[in-house]
Amino acid sequence: MKKLLIQKFGGTSVADLDRLRNVMRIVQAARSNGADVVVVLSAMAGETDRLITLAKEASTTPNPREYDNLISTGEMISSSILSILLNANNHPAKSMTGRQAGIETDDWHKKAHIENINIEPLRKELAAGIIPVVAGFQGVNPIGDTATLGRGGSDTTAVAIAAALKADECQIFTDVDGVYTSDPRVVPAAQRLDKITLKEMLEMASLGAKVLQNRAVRFAGRYQVPLRVLSSFVDGPGTLITYEEFNMEKPIVTSIAFNRSEAKLTVWGIPDQAGVAAYILGVVAEANIDVDMILQNPDSEGHINFTFTVHRDDYQRALAILQDAAKHLNAREATGDNRIAKVSAIGVGMRTHIGVGKILFNTLAQEGIPVQLVTTSEIKMSVVLDEKYLELAARSLHTAFGLDSELQEEFDPIPATA
Amino acid sequence: MKKLLIQKFGGTSVADLDRLRNVMRIVQAARSNGADVVVVLSAMAGETDRLITLAKEASTTPNPREYDNLISTGEMISSSILSILLNANNHPAKSMTGRQAGIETDDWHKKAHIENINIEPLRKELAAGIIPVVAGFQGVNPIGDTATLGRGGSDTTAVAIAAALKADECQIFTDVDGVYTSDPRVVPAAQRLDKITLKEMLEMASLGAKVLQNRAVRFAGRYQVPLRVLSSFVDGPGTLITYEEFNMEKPIVTSIAFNRSEAKLTVWGIPDQAGVAAYILGVVAEANIDVDMILQNPDSEGHINFTFTVHRDDYQRALAILQDAAKHLNAREATGDNRIAKVSAIGVGMRTHIGVGKILFNTLAQEGIPVQLVTTSEIKMSVVLDEKYLELAARSLHTAFGLDSELQEEFDPIPATA
Repeated sequence: MKKLLIQKFGGTSVADLDRLRNVMRIVQAARSNGADVVVVLSAMAGETDRLITLAKEASTTPNPREYDNLISTGEMISSSILSILLNANNHPAKSMTGRQAGIETDDWHKKAHIENINIEPLRKELAAGIIPVVAGFQGVNPIGDTATLGRGGSDTTAVAIAAALKADECQIFTDVDGVYTSDPRVVPAAQRLDKITLKEMLEMASLGAKVLQNRAVRFAGRYQVPLRVLSSFVDGPGTLITYEEFNMEKPIVTSIAFNRSEAKLTVWGIPDQAGVAAYILGVVAEANIDVDMILQNPDSEGHINFTFTVHRDDYQRALAILQDAAKHLNAREATGDNRIAKVSAIGVGMRTHIGVGKILFNTLAQEGIPVQLVTTSEIKMSVVLDEKYLELAARSLHTAFGLDSELQEEFDPIPATA
Repeated sequence: MKKLLIQKFGGTSVADLDRLRNVMRIVQAARSNGADVVVVLSAMAGETDRLITLAKEASTTPNPREYDNLISTGEMISSSILSILLNANNHPAKSMTGRQAGIETDDWHKKAHIENINIEPLRKELAAGIIPVVAGFQGVNPIGDTATLGRGGSDTTAVAIAAALKADECQIFTDVDGVYTSDPRVVPAAQRLDKITLKEMLEMASLGAKVLQNRAVRFAGRYQVPLRVLSSFVDGPGTLITYEEFNMEKPIVTSIAFNRSEAKLTVWGIPDQAGVAAYILGVVAEANIDVDMILQNPDSEGHINFTFTVHRDDYQRALAILQDAAKHLNAREATGDNRIAKVSAIGVGMRTHIGVGKILFNTLAQEGIPVQLVTTSEIKMSVVLDEKYLELAARSLHTAFGLDSELQEEFDPIPATA
């Protein structure tokens, strides 16, 4: 049977006619290799922002149905133009809106979820030798209105179509040639991973390494869709997202992620009492502020110090709220720091390797980097540092965990010297 | 029963947010006066051209289905934004694509004809107190694809909806405040007509006075839709298109139209033989050149002189073709003139008033203007002149037929002096 590929191209990959011609060549190459292809497109770079600006100028709170009708045109434009190019070059193609492609969503506007895909329209075009070019990011809701899936929703469209059609691979083309062991702009020795597990991918995305939308990755995981991230700008195999668990031959830590978008807040010296955490998190939640890391530990006098991190944009508001909360709790004081960075080591093998923490803390100590906070999960270990140490920490950890490109071959997960 | 108005706004009336806010006020005023309103919109000025340029850059012969998918987004954008504005100002509104509004077309892409309107969706929204904001210029064809109606098709959408819903009036808002007795830029005394008959409107449109698309006017005529042209820029009653025949109280000539977009070609001294006209028009048609006026008359030696007019853009090509044709027909020569103008007097009463030709030729003779060609129809008389006489001819005829604004009251259709 013929191979079926879903090929999704993001905004920079369809930015202008030259880029769209390049997309045509990629699709053509896949067809020449004997595969059937369903294309999913984002809007041309800048188009969605232009439309959102129009909507916001019309109203600070645009009607959600109309907002969706407006911004869904961006993907319709790019998919029509690609279809014109394909047809003009003797590749029969049909642009399809989310509605025409059978993408059925729930009734949330602006962030709808795909509930079902009626595969008949896509199957019919494929059977006729036609390339369906699907407008990503959109579907039709139960009352027949257009609904959009939220930013990055085109990834989800592609994954959902791949799952529904049981495609052999869902290929997400972006402006990077795969998933890296760390951000190459900060860690020059970072290298592309041939494979990464779903869980690692999810941790990386939630830590700020935005290659793929987390929702799309989770969707892929649910249906075990073979998912590959690759570049539309340079040839290469990209990175395959796999669903296998820990593999003894893989390095334990597969990547170093980081961000400097958070701020840290602490209420000091809270008299021990029931419900401290619930009270503090409650007042913060009431102000619609999201909390990331949370730590609570007693001080030497039996009082509680309660620390958490928020997005840096919410820092000033959160600090004011905490200073009130501190009075209410008879705590000593509330302080904060918005010049912090979070650095994380990620790897599915981490849980079973107690040596990871040892390498991580040894490395930071050798470089003289004080650690302010630590949290761990099954597959990651994160530390909060003064942001001035971010680059040094990321690079030295990348080296220590054997991720640098020159060292990869002879990597030994736990160096003898550690 | 509540009055029902269809209000259609063209490109300059929806050019930007300020203009769209103005549209909102017009719709709001109609609703305050107790009417239900269905709005039909064109794309924002410039948007359709932007999309056509994209299509043509992608291919000199873009796939028609994809071309329609692409350019139909222009009207979706303007109708979504107006709906955002209306909802934000407490006027419940829903943008509707041609598909959602039940506009069913034949299967011609780029110039589809409306075959039926399923009125249920519009009726349903109106019954719920919602303003349907319909994307003009588009519908859905028998196989479920989007089809566009061709340039100016939004007028047709509005008229078709008015016919289907048996609306009390179809109001076409443009950047002029009605239909004039002549072009005010050339004839300063030109004035707005309160009423004009359908036939006169059709002649004026075909003569270059492009206030309304001819197809839309014909459609209105077929269903006797009360049609009004008015301005979205200034208040006023506009001009009502009526279906009554000649009215004794009306001036016989209601307007003077003109254009300078044509060129004249003549094959001289063709030996009389069967099929001369068919041969000449055949070779011209093969070159895809449209012909407007056609005259054939014998010269004093029994040879035929065959004259016709074409669009000025086609002049050089047509002349080259005619020079070949002249040889083939053993004719004396083929010549042309692209510095001509056509001036027409229009009025439903003309046919029954033999005095019209007399006034027309007397007036031109008094001004010393040579007439090169003459054609007549039931309701118009057109003359071709050297283009340098255009303004003089238009103004003197406008005066002679009593159309000048100061003279209107005491107008006598056939002046005693003529």
